Amino acid sequence: MSQTNKPLVGVVMGSSSDWDVMQHAVAMLKDFGVPFEAQVVSAHRMADEMFRYAETARARGLRAIIAGAGGAAHLPGMIAAKTIVPVFGVPVPSKYLRGEDSLLSIVQMPKGVPVATFAIGEAGAANAALHAIATLAATDDALAAALEAFRTRQTEAARAMTLPL
Amino acid sequence: MSQTNKPLVGVVMGSSSDWDVMQHAVAMLKDFGVPFEAQVVSAHRMADEMFRYAETARARGLRAIIAGAGGAAHLPGMIAAKTIVPVFGVPVPSKYLRGEDSLLSIVQMPKGVPVATFAIGEAGAANAALHAIATLAATDDALAAALEAFRTRQTEAARAMTLPL
Amino acid sequence: MSQTNKPLVGVVMGSSSDWDVMQHAVAMLKDFGVPFEAQVVSAHRMADEMFRYAETARARGLRAIIAGAGGAAHLPGMIAAKTIVPVFGVPVPSKYLRGEDSLLSIVQMPKGVPVATFAIGEAGAANAALHAIATLAATDDALAAALEAFRTRQTEAARAMTLPL
Amino acid sequence: MSQTNKPLVGVVMGSSSDWDVMQHAVAMLKDFGVPFEAQVVSAHRMADEMFRYAETARARGLRAIIAGAGGAAHLPGMIAAKTIVPVFGVPVPSKYLRGEDSLLSIVQMPKGVPVATFAIGEAGAANAALHAIATLAATDDALAAALEAFRTRQTEAARAMTLPL
Amino acid sequence: MSQTNKPLVGVVMGSSSDWDVMQHAVAMLKDFGVPFEAQVVSAHRMADEMFRYAETARARGLRAIIAGAGGAAHLPGMIAAKTIVPVFGVPVPSKYLRGEDSLLSIVQMPKGVPVATFAIGEAGAANAALHAIATLAATDDALAAALEAFRTRQTEAARAMTLPL
Amino acid sequence: MSQTNKPLVGVVMGSSSDWDVMQHAVAMLKDFGVPFEAQVVSAHRMADEMFRYAETARARGLRAIIAGAGGAAHLPGMIAAKTIVPVFGVPVPSKYLRGEDSLLSIVQMPKGVPVATFAIGEAGAANAALHAIATLAATDDALAAALEAFRTRQTEAARAMTLPL
Amino acid sequence: MSQTNKPLVGVVMGSSSDWDVMQHAVAMLKDFGVPFEAQVVSAHRMADEMFRYAETARARGLRAIIAGAGGAAHLPGMIAAKTIVPVFGVPVPSKYLRGEDSLLSIVQMPKGVPVATFAIGEAGAANAALHAIATLAATDDALAAALEAFRTRQTEAARAMTLPL
Amino acid sequence: MSQTNKPLVGVVMGSSSDWDVMQHAVAMLKDFGVPFEAQVVSAHRMADEMFRYAETARARGLRAIIAGAGGAAHLPGMIAAKTIVPVFGVPVPSKYLRGEDSLLSIVQMPKGVPVATFAIGEAGAANAALHAIATLAATDDALAAALEAFRTRQTEAARAMTLPL
Repeated sequence: MSQTNKPLVGVVMGSSSDWDVMQHAVAMLKDFGVPFEAQVVSAHRMADEMFRYAETARARGLRAIIAGAGGAAHLPGMIAAKTIVPVFGVPVPSKYLRGEDSLLSIVQMPKGVPVATFAIGEAGAANAALHAIATLAATDDALAAALEAFRTRQTEAARAMTLPL
Repeated sequence: MSQTNKPLVGVVMGSSSDWDVMQHAVAMLKDFGVPFEAQVVSAHRMADEMFRYAETARARGLRAIIAGAGGAAHLPGMIAAKTIVPVFGVPVPSKYLRGEDSLLSIVQMPKGVPVATFAIGEAGAANAALHAIATLAATDDALAAALEAFRTRQTEAARAMTLPL
Repeated sequence: MSQTNKPLVGVVMGSSSDWDVMQHAVAMLKDFGVPFEAQVVSAHRMADEMFRYAETARARGLRAIIAGAGGAAHLPGMIAAKTIVPVFGVPVPSKYLRGEDSLLSIVQMPKGVPVATFAIGEAGAANAALHAIATLAATDDALAAALEAFRTRQTEAARAMTLPL
Repeated sequence: MSQTNKPLVGVVMGSSSDWDVMQHAVAMLKDFGVPFEAQVVSAHRMADEMFRYAETARARGLRAIIAGAGGAAHLPGMIAAKTIVPVFGVPVPSKYLRGEDSLLSIVQMPKGVPVATFAIGEAGAANAALHAIATLAATDDALAAALEAFRTRQTEAARAMTLPL
Repeated sequence: MSQTNKPLVGVVMGSSSDWDVMQHAVAMLKDFGVPFEAQVVSAHRMADEMFRYAETARARGLRAIIAGAGGAAHLPGMIAAKTIVPVFGVPVPSKYLRGEDSLLSIVQMPKGVPVATFAIGEAGAANAALHAIATLAATDDALAAALEAFRTRQTEAARAMTLPL
Repeated sequence: MSQTNKPLVGVVMGSSSDWDVMQHAVAMLKDFGVPFEAQVVSAHRMADEMFRYAETARARGLRAIIAGAGGAAHLPGMIAAKTIVPVFGVPVPSKYLRGEDSLLSIVQMPKGVPVATFAIGEAGAANAALHAIATLAATDDALAAALEAFRTRQTEAARAMTLPL
Repeated sequence: MSQTNKPLVGVVMGSSSDWDVMQHAVAMLKDFGVPFEAQVVSAHRMADEMFRYAETARARGLRAIIAGAGGAAHLPGMIAAKTIVPVFGVPVPSKYLRGEDSLLSIVQMPKGVPVATFAIGEAGAANAALHAIATLAATDDALAAALEAFRTRQTEAARAMTLPL
Repeated sequence: MSQTNKPLVGVVMGSSSDWDVMQHAVAMLKDFGVPFEAQVVSAHRMADEMFRYAETARARGLRAIIAGAGGAAHLPGMIAAKTIVPVFGVPVPSKYLRGEDSLLSIVQMPKGVPVATFAIGEAGAANAALHAIATLAATDDALAAALEAFRTRQTEAARAMTLPL
């Protein structure tokens, strides 16, 4: 497990092969200086650890859990089943169905156990982190200011885009 | 606009015809006693009001915005473009494509502007509210306890289910 | 829980609302006189019971577990994660996506943790039972004979079909 | 912003990464000598500029706005919400869903706020421009003649195609 | 054929069974007082008439052709192949695929022959008419004012929507 | 146009870029020694030639027309609208939707004007030719024998396949 | 089995429940006076009969076989595997996937064993018969004339359609 | 045919081109020391051999048949139609639809003739073998122990995964 200070956000994924996508969540958390932890927790191969991870999340101080998974992507939903800490699901693209299966497996949760779902792939990973940061920013003015600044820089970058006309 | 105390959660939808679905978000907020406001804000027919709604959301004290829309469902994403208050998108089922269009229009947001997306229809509306409540519960122990109690009741209800064998 | 003798097949489903579909599995088991048990085990609302169910399945003598679920259908896969007893997944039709989500959530399991998946709805439920029976029949000549007889009757019924020409 | 004379057609896109596709619209406008402007206007990162762009479009003399976007493609629909100048939407292919999300996000607009939608990718960009040109040609005989000539050349090119038999 | 004055907009559909959808285009044209004609022109059963319709459209003064069709919906594209008058395609819902086939058959036109496509069903029919009206409004100030007024009324109607809280 | 003797089968495609796929139809016809002609006939860019092609097909002795097209694939259906010669449609893969659009545009013809449709891509092109050959073989014993021989060789080739165990 | 004279066309379907759809093929054959036979032949429940049906089809004088099936629709393809008589496949709508599964199971045949596929449902059944009739008409001038007359009547019926303007 | 001792599991596939996927089933069987046979049996090109294979499977001692096929994937279902030996279907990815057609053609079997279906591609092939092994393990304690050990190693491998933080 990787950890920075006392983590506020947990980032989990079903396999190290999900890292290509999920590193975009981690990079965003790092950019904002949000303490986080990141590790592989496989729903299907580490089911007990997954449950313990979820069960202890709140007591350990986690305010958000970002979970990425592909195919029959059960990790976000099963963590959500075991904790009231908000879970943010990232559909990792699958080899043949390009993440359509991952998206539906994550987003179509039944009433009562929510998973907040984001776009397939890198954009979704980054946005899950941004959403978690926004959640923390509600009670952290410095973080809110950083988020506003991020948005402003983003707008300026878009404004600066030119076309090769 | 309907309002209870100083609202912490805003619930918006593109049309009063979305109420059948979105009332499940409102009912959940009521059950938990979370102050909320709910109103129609159409992205395409009330674009300026939508922007003002988003721009003032943080200052007005909103901690979460739940936005439901169907078809080319632009409401959640456009509100997210104008505020750092976390936005929770609910895909409302569309007449012919049953919400597949709504889901993709909401969840596939580009990197930098997140919308947390939930299941198509009633379950998604209820879960968006539950997720918003979970966000608030991170800094509100009473609400966290209520959420735990909700989960316990839910588990007990499932346990009590019998089959007509 | 409903039970007949010492059950060889467990039938579980996420909610009593899945009964309309899953009763077709139970009816088939009854027709063949295969001892079974059937109950609601919700992956998301009864996660711990689900794990205990899976963990004890082999020791309790279960030779097959038929699991039906809809939407983000995690029940079959999570049971499969916790036992080597063969798991048979039945995609229950969902309200808006008619089981396309259920099918993908069940069938697209990662390498290492299999779930045998059947058709969406009633046909899938009946066939999951038939497949479980076929598995038992491999070491039970009487059951094999019963299965052959079932096939013969089925063929005769098809042969007897007439068209209103 | 790039501009030629007093532009009649505005071409906007959510990011400079959309240029690969959208240049086919620009090339067509250039071929027909239709004055145009082209620039990046991001719905999600430059929301206010987008609204100003749309609000001033008619007064600035624009007769058509071609808007390209991918994924949760809100740009065409939000511009259409703010102007009566006809909007032509081009679904830009997305990384994982190849533009299916872009197409649905653009075409499934609600009653009252139309976006004319074209094919995913390069063909759609070129055709959006051709359609805008056809609109202008209705009151511009020279342009109509040029469009007829384009069609004739296109037919001749198809007629001249040979197969390596 | 139905006709009002010298028509500026032609409305065609493949069968009288498309009327349920296409009447929403006609109603919009009537509301705006735009002279139109409406008739059945089947691509597959009236191919020659369809070609003559398209070939004579410009000379007869048509400024826009709205074409609705379902399934393998060839009508809009084939009319577009025979005239430079802008063609607006409306995907009519099909019995089993609910218009997904109609949408793809209309929108995915090859480079060089555009069809402006709108949403599946009633909304698309109304919006095709609104888009045609917007095209006409570019050179007709009274119509532009009427369109602005329509938009204003539409906004006011959305503003007036209340929720049964 | 390429032609061999008096052709019995016409092979048409919307563009020379379809040749990669459609050559598999031509190769099959050559293998069986069936006289054929092959040429580009674009539905959208050569609409009149397409109609003349269809109108004269029967008189010219064509017994089958194989038509390949991609995207909004109107060629097979429009030829079928103009002749009673059987039309065999081949969905050419499209750039972004891989032929799903082509398939639906070809196969979903309305009652009364049939197009016999085959698989997307090379297999479909070859099979359209084989089906046309089978049609001719019904009244041509030599061709029937050749077709039987083809099947036998095909079976032998499959039987001869070994696995690198 | 139902039979008229010495049948030229065989109509088979997997179950009597397919009759609602397949009767449209039979009705068309009756209208044209084409001798046919129609019966239930289930690929999965009457596999041997299916093979015998296919093996004897040519010797019995069948010139075309129309096969309707739903879901995992194997009937058309397996008959095609056993005869060179042309097979016409009709995708029967399935309960949950509305025939999308049936369509793909029928149309996506591998190179070497073709099945001519038609639209999902009633239209496809009627068109399969029309296509078979067109095949016969190639060597039967009276049937060709009847087919031309059918087309003419169909055109006249479309021309006679009026709209309730 | 490749064979090891008296095979308990048969592995069949429609073509040697399916080997890339299906070797993952064979490798798993080898790893567990389960006697198997593997060969090409094409449903469409070796229909009679396929039937004989199925008919003799039980008598030859097969306890499971793993069948891989792509596109209109009829092999698993047709084998299942001819034997009560449990059939495990593996959807092989197809060139254009990436196995969506294969999946639906295999999984959507009608009531009465089951095929246990697994994920598209390599994961599905491996899992079909694992499921067959689990079936055998029910009456083979050594194999059960091996399966438990496999699961344990798999869990340890997942636990050992580190992220490049």
